[in-house]
Parts: sequence; structure tokens; C-alpha cells
Amino acid sequence: MTNYKPVTEEVLEELRKAVGAEHVKNDAETLERYKTDEEPDAHYHHLPEVVVAPGSTEEVAAVMKIANKYLVPVTPRSAGTSVSCGAIPVFGGIVLLMERMNKIIKLDTDAMYMEVEAGALTSDIQAKANEAGLLYAGDPCSADSCMIGGNIATNAGGNKAVRYGTTRHQVYSIEVVTPTGEIAELGNRLKKCSTGYCLDQLVMGSEGTLGIITKATLKLLPLAPYRLDILAVFTEVQKAVDLVPALVKAGLNPTSVEFMDNGFVRAASDYAEQRLPHYEDGSYVIVTVETFNEDELDMKMEQLDEICTACGATDVVEADERVWKVRRSCLEGSKALSKVSTSDDLVVPIDKIAVCLNHLMEVSKQFDFECMCLAHAGDGNLHFNCLKMDMTDEEWEKQLAEFHKICYAYVYSLGGRLSGEHGIGAKKIDALAAYCDPVEMSIMKTIKRAMDPNNILNPGKLIRA
Amino acid sequence: MTNYKPVTEEVLEELRKAVGAEHVKNDAETLERYKTDEEPDAHYHHLPEVVVAPGSTEEVAAVMKIANKYLVPVTPRSAGTSVSCGAIPVFGGIVLLMERMNKIIKLDTDAMYMEVEAGALTSDIQAKANEAGLLYAGDPCSADSCMIGGNIATNAGGNKAVRYGTTRHQVYSIEVVTPTGEIAELGNRLKKCSTGYCLDQLVMGSEGTLGIITKATLKLLPLAPYRLDILAVFTEVQKAVDLVPALVKAGLNPTSVEFMDNGFVRAASDYAEQRLPHYEDGSYVIVTVETFNEDELDMKMEQLDEICTACGATDVVEADERVWKVRRSCLEGSKALSKVSTSDDLVVPIDKIAVCLNHLMEVSKQFDFECMCLAHAGDGNLHFNCLKMDMTDEEWEKQLAEFHKICYAYVYSLGGRLSGEHGIGAKKIDALAAYCDPVEMSIMKTIKRAMDPNNILNPGKLIRA
Repeated sequence: MTNYKPVTEEVLEELRKAVGAEHVKNDAETLERYKTDEEPDAHYHHLPEVVVAPGSTEEVAAVMKIANKYLVPVTPRSAGTSVSCGAIPVFGGIVLLMERMNKIIKLDTDAMYMEVEAGALTSDIQAKANEAGLLYAGDPCSADSCMIGGNIATNAGGNKAVRYGTTRHQVYSIEVVTPTGEIAELGNRLKKCSTGYCLDQLVMGSEGTLGIITKATLKLLPLAPYRLDILAVFTEVQKAVDLVPALVKAGLNPTSVEFMDNGFVRAASDYAEQRLPHYEDGSYVIVTVETFNEDELDMKMEQLDEICTACGATDVVEADERVWKVRRSCLEGSKALSKVSTSDDLVVPIDKIAVCLNHLMEVSKQFDFECMCLAHAGDGNLHFNCLKMDMTDEEWEKQLAEFHKICYAYVYSLGGRLSGEHGIGAKKIDALAAYCDPVEMSIMKTIKRAMDPNNILNPGKLIRA
Repeated sequence: MTNYKPVTEEVLEELRKAVGAEHVKNDAETLERYKTDEEPDAHYHHLPEVVVAPGSTEEVAAVMKIANKYLVPVTPRSAGTSVSCGAIPVFGGIVLLMERMNKIIKLDTDAMYMEVEAGALTSDIQAKANEAGLLYAGDPCSADSCMIGGNIATNAGGNKAVRYGTTRHQVYSIEVVTPTGEIAELGNRLKKCSTGYCLDQLVMGSEGTLGIITKATLKLLPLAPYRLDILAVFTEVQKAVDLVPALVKAGLNPTSVEFMDNGFVRAASDYAEQRLPHYEDGSYVIVTVETFNEDELDMKMEQLDEICTACGATDVVEADERVWKVRRSCLEGSKALSKVSTSDDLVVPIDKIAVCLNHLMEVSKQFDFECMCLAHAGDGNLHFNCLKMDMTDEEWEKQLAEFHKICYAYVYSLGGRLSGEHGIGAKKIDALAAYCDPVEMSIMKTIKRAMDPNNILNPGKLIRA
């Protein structure tokens, strides 16, 4: 581990020169605010020594030069919506805020792209595209509060990934400040390219360990004007998850395929005060299909109905606002049952969803917590929520750790991975070290050391270099 | 540059032990055969010192260990169909043949993937998928003779990239032997993943400089049963290329959009002895649309007809076998006009195709060679063919170099790149050094040096580390 140095008055002075004194804060209240992101557990919290808010790419680069000169670690932070401790300054030092760089720089409706700064709000980007009759297809569930830089750094997923891919597939190019403070433009606005290493994809999803994303050029798509949402109700979980591969094979190209097990159906329905069919024993699959003309929508609607029925759905109904109200109430519904809970973010191949779901729900019965499953089923991404209920802290932590250990080993045995969309951050760094292929891990460390020789940028995240 | 050592008898003996004596050849005839790939120009040729054909991943790894121990460079070679000198052993040493590793290991029709060895023929993979009612969407024009390992290493493109992306988008994971002889599985069979660095995409398209691809797990897609090909004839080039963004915006999602300028129309029609409308003054755009049901096809056909007409097409006809015969005769047609010719592989953003085509065709008139353009227009990939005709060797080389210089600078000024699908290889290594962003180049070199400290793997390609 690098022998980091404290943030001295000398360092502060250089930072003030670089970004302006008003954007360098080290009062107790500010430091306190940035000791965590979405993580409520104080075990994971760490105070920064200073919080810096640069206003331009050049200022970000200047901060990185100073950090390397004085051996001070830097933790980049967009909106701080990470649920994997991705924005926590594990080794203190500088928290680097991207929030001042929040502009939408350019929207080109003809060429269908948008240039944005890293601190632009994801929902602003979506809205701006929609106003122009276009779609920005990245859609993490936290779109209203998260920023695009963080989305790209984590390769955020969301509801539409089954059709459009994750955030890394929505990006033409990124402007990046390297760990040593150089500025690079990686990627390009091309549909096809065999010119050099694919560095843009390397930096995207590296959770701010290989570079700070300062700007991005985003792909926009034609906005499909016709949309249909259906709710398929299943009384057997197995049949519900078997629907997914059937949809894929039919070439239906759904925009989203969301799954709620009966635990979530009941918790969310109770919270939303909304009873839908088979509240007592049903699992729900909500499918959204979007098309470019009405006839195509009608055709797909028929096809969808046939496939759901063939897969054993007991009810197939149009999903109106009541259904979405229930779907949106999942988190609150589970919180109403237990103040303390955790949500995991496992991902497996599509054909392993059923076996994974069944096995891990069965395993969970050995434990004292309640377990429920919510899935972006169309892309194999399973969120298992564990509810502490009335367990003691000690038992909860012990049993949860044991359950996670079983889950992770099992998911890897299926060809799955630890995170589908939340990232590794500081939270799963030890798990990744334990389950990752050792040669893959060694290549990751080789690249990190080569690109960040002082281990200055976001240390303690993803890998221990 | 690394101080490479010659392949001594001691090295040969170790190689024979590693892969079997019958798979280690250094007779003059064999060495002669592997001094080039598809490159006819003897300036680029280099003799290897030995040709080695491993039969397994472990043997590939053993060869890399030996190569590092004795400081002998290794040039991996699939089918040798590179047109950028990608398989030429620039520094001698070992040519490593992947042809013995040619098995299709597994086809899973339920989970829709195929596991193959790197030496499997691309057309065999396509055929095997089709037999099972599925599609492998990678489709380089050389599919009948090229191998999947080379496709992945070069990120090969082809006709279907506009709908499905290039080879890198068809791959779930790759087994790789690293430059230092370790074996790693990179990537995974997941639709979504935020677990570690995207090393699979880094190695794919690195043209064999960061790892030797030994196996791959390929994505298969549902095979669309309905297909329609239309030929749109334009008497104004500008209008022909304006069709492309119009198709994209309409959400038509064509499988391919191919463009031939009038030079190619005439050369190919003459060669194929087939006259189509506007032979004298027409540019052709061939559009293929595929759907999952017949009504959808009818709908899209109507839409397509409307869009082509609105864009100013003088004729819109169904593209039957005659049209494809002409399209397939492009290369032969141009060779019939001039024995010596070159084909370049530039790529620009979709909205820059028109301006790029017009400008470079105009520029080409200053030179004595003939210039014609063929384009995978749907993804901005322009092949400019220059025909030497009766120029002297000296004038041809001088003028061609000058034209390329203008082309490359211009393409970069539009946000384009040197290669859309052929790769950089040895042929464009100096051009890449000249036009690549210096920070991007320095990151590429940093990664290459870190992963291949002896610069053993495919030196003299893509970058000079």
C-alpha cells in the first residue's frame, strides 16, 4: 500500500490556487458530509481531509498533479448515490466533487448525440433527449438523483438494459483525466473502429480507479413512439423465470423484463395499498415492449400474450399505473417490514436465473432473516434483499456474511459475477479478491499499477493494487 | 526496441518438446510461405525463423514461456487473411499458427451460445448456428476463409455491423494466453456486469499484441426468418449518402446498408456482364432488412420505399441475385481495370460520410490514379480503392503516399479513424503514431509495456512499444 501523506497547509494552498479558494473546503461539517455515500453502516465511513470542487477538466488535471506530487489519495464523487461504498474516501485525502461540471454542452439531433459534463444529472439528459424526440437509453433506477459520470464509471444498468445494454453501451467517447493528471479523449463517435486499444471500455466501469471521467459524448437513439406494458402473473416461480429465454428467442426485443417474487409482491402491494391478482401466491413479471409503428405493437402484443400463456401465466393483463405503483413501492415495502435490510446485486447467465433463484431462496431459509428477490430478469440481474427483522446485530452480521459467502461461490459456479450494476466499490473488494480468476486479477493489478504508479486515484476500491 | 535473440537449436528443441516435433517447422519452403499474409507488396515481407503449430491452449502458453525465456518474438496467425500486414513476422522469430485449434467445442441452442477454438473457420461457425435456427452475427467479407481468432483480434466488421455491431459485440468471453504465457478467461456469458475491468474488450481488437486468443464463447441470436433486399439508385452521390441517417432515424434497423459509387458500379457491372439501371451515372445503395414476421417485413418495405424516394432515389427495386452478383464483383471488377490497386479502410461518423466522400473523391482528381469508393455506409466505413493504371512504380508510390496523408489528416479532422475493420497491423503503424492523440498513445504503450515487458508478442504491429 502506498505510504500516503497528510493534506498539509502547503497542499491546501496549491489546491486553492488550482480551483479557487471557495471550492476547497475542510471545515468539519463538510468533511462529515462526505464520509459516506448511500451507505448507512458506519463501519464503512471514512472522513476525507479536504473536499475540492473543480470547475473544469484542466482543474481536475491540476488536482491530480498536486495529489501525485504530495502523495495524497483522491476519491472522485458524482452524486454519491453509490450503494457499494464507491464514493467513500477509504484512505482520507481529497474528495473530488464533479457537481460543478454539470452542463449539457451540446445536443446534435441530426447526428444523434449529446455532449455532457460528468456532473450532468442523468434525468436531465434523458429529458433533453426526449424533448428532441430522441432517447438516451441509459436508465438506472436512481436516474433522478445520479450523475452521468458516476453512471459511466460504474457501468450502471437499470430497467432498459435488456434491450439497449448498460451505460457502457450508450457512450461514444469519454474525456478522461488520467491518474497522473493528463487529459485524454478515449473512444470516438464511430459505429465501427479497428484503430488501437479499446481504452474507453477499459476506463468505463473501472469505478474511477483508472481515470476521472470529465465529459462524455452519448449515443442517442430514435424514440419509439408506441409502448405496451403487460403484467404476467405466475403461481410458480419456475414458470415465471422460464418466460425470459422464451421472450429472447422470439425476437420480441422487449425494453424491460422485471421480476418480483411473492415476497416483494406482498410487501410492495401492502405499502402501495393496492391489491393485484394473486397477491397471496403470485410472482409477477412486467414486460415492456416499444415499437416504431402501431401495427407492429399490436402484433407484438398478441405474440407476447401467446408466449406468456404458453409459459404458464395464470393472468396476463395490461400493466397500468396500479402495477407500476406496486413495482415502485418495492424498496419502501421491504423497509416497512424491517428498518434494516441489504440488497445484493448478483448477475448470472439468462439460462441460470431459474436455478439460481430457486437455490438461493431455498438456502436463505436456513437463516433467520427474511429474503425476497427482485430481478431485472431480462438480463440475469438478481437483487436479493435480506430483511433483518428482529435479529440481534451480532446474529444479523454473522448470518448475512455466511449467506453472502454461499451466494458468491454459487453465483461464480454458474458463470455469474458479484455485481450486475452496482459495482464492487469498497464493499465487495474482498469478495472480488476471493472469487476473481487469479490471472484476471493479476492483469487488473498490472494495469492499475502501470497507469497509477502512486496508487493515488480512488484507492481501496475494486482492487487492492 | 527489445534486443531479440535468434532462434537457436536450443530454442527449437524446447519448442519441439512443447508442441511435438512435427509441429515445429523451419524448412525454407515453410518459412517462405509465412513471410506474408494477404500483402502482395514485397516491401512488407519478413521471413520467420520457425513456424510452430500448437494443438492446445497449454501448448500456446508453453510457447510464450519459451519465447520470453529466449527473447524471441512471436507473431500469432489465424488464416493469414489480414490486409494490414497483421500476420507478418516483422522481427522474424516464431510464427504461431492457430489452425490446429479449429474445433467448434459446444453449441447450446437453449442458452444461445457457441464455444469455439480460435482456429475455427468463421463460415463454419455461421453455418453451425444457422442449422440450429440461430444467427452468429459476425460477418466479415472474408468469412469463407478467415478464422474467428483473427476476427476477434482485429475486431472484424463486415456487412451486418450496422445492425449487430462488429466482432467485439458478438463475443461473451475469450480464453487468452497472455504475453508472459499465463492463461486467463476474460469476459463472461452475462448480459450485464459491473465486476472488474473490461479486459475482454481491451484484448479484443488489440491485434494480438496483448494476448493470444485461444478460445471464444460467442453470442447467438434468434434468426430472423423474413428478409428483403432493395437496391436504391441515385444519380447524385450526395442524395445516396443522405439516405443513411434517414434510415437510422426511422428506426428501421437495417441489417446492412452498402454503397457503391459509379466507378464501382461500372467496373463491377462490366466484370459481371450485368447492366442494372443507371449504369452510366448511378450510385447504388443496397439495403437489407430482416424481421421476425411477414407483416412487419411488408410494413418496413413500404417505409423503406418511402424513405428512399423522399431522399431522391431515381429507382427503388428489389435487389435480386443480379444485384448481388454486381456487388460481389467489385474487387474483381477493379482488378480488371488495373492489376495493381490498394483499398483503404477509413471510418467516419455517419453524419460525415457525405462530406468525406465528396471531399476525398474531389482531392483524388489531383492525382494520376483512378479512385473509386465502396462503403459499408450504414456504419461510416469507407473503402477508397486507388487503381495504379499505367502509372510508373515511382509515381504511384509517391502519389499514393501523398493521397493517404491528405486522407488520414482529413478523416481525423472529422472525428474519424484510420481503420474501420482491417486494423492497423504493420501497415499503418506510422500513420497511427502520427495521428493518434498523444495521451491515448502513451496509455496504450504503458499498458503494452506492463503486460508484455519483453515486447515479445506481435511486435511491430499497431504501436511501437
